[in-house]
Amino acid sequence: MIKIVSKNVIKDGQKDTFIQLTKELIEKSRQEAGCISYHLLQDINNCSVLTFIEEWQDQKAIEIHNNSEHFKRIIPLLADLRIGKSELNLYKEI
Amino acid sequence: MIKIVSKNVIKDGQKDTFIQLTKELIEKSRQEAGCISYHLLQDINNCSVLTFIEEWQDQKAIEIHNNSEHFKRIIPLLADLRIGKSELNLYKEI
Repeated sequence: MIKIVSKNVIKDGQKDTFIQLTKELIEKSRQEAGCISYHLLQDINNCSVLTFIEEWQDQKAIEIHNNSEHFKRIIPLLADLRIGKSELNLYKEI
Repeated sequence: MIKIVSKNVIKDGQKDTFIQLTKELIEKSRQEAGCISYHLLQDINNCSVLTFIEEWQDQKAIEIHNNSEHFKRIIPLLADLRIGKSELNLYKEI
């Protein structure tokens, strides 16, 4: 199992658009065979911070996800709405 | 439900000690009434990054956890083994 944490700081005034765009991404990602869970969360202390926390079966499932039509179409749209790059970590259990 | 992501960069040569110290913390935290899940994960691309991902029922459960004997005893020991502060985010579902 691989867990992904992808933290985004959203530009002023773009949060609702960001969330709206993620709805299809979340729905379609959850339907992928290798997806265990896929959530978008908001920081309690900073509402500009929106973070995906995802669980995938293995590296192969992530590769398929990264090459999916919905990922390749929606992720660049989200990138325009955030400040800088997302902070991305891939984790394994110890 | 509140999700906590606490990211730590561990000092050279201290990772095994850090992991050993977390064992009791993880075991006792999981036994707390308000704890839904509690995991320590290692970054796949940087083995010095160890991150707690935790789920708690509510803010009150986190307050009880932060005041528990095991938290107050073990967390300062872990702090000595990491570089700088942990990167701590508390999240709610959108």
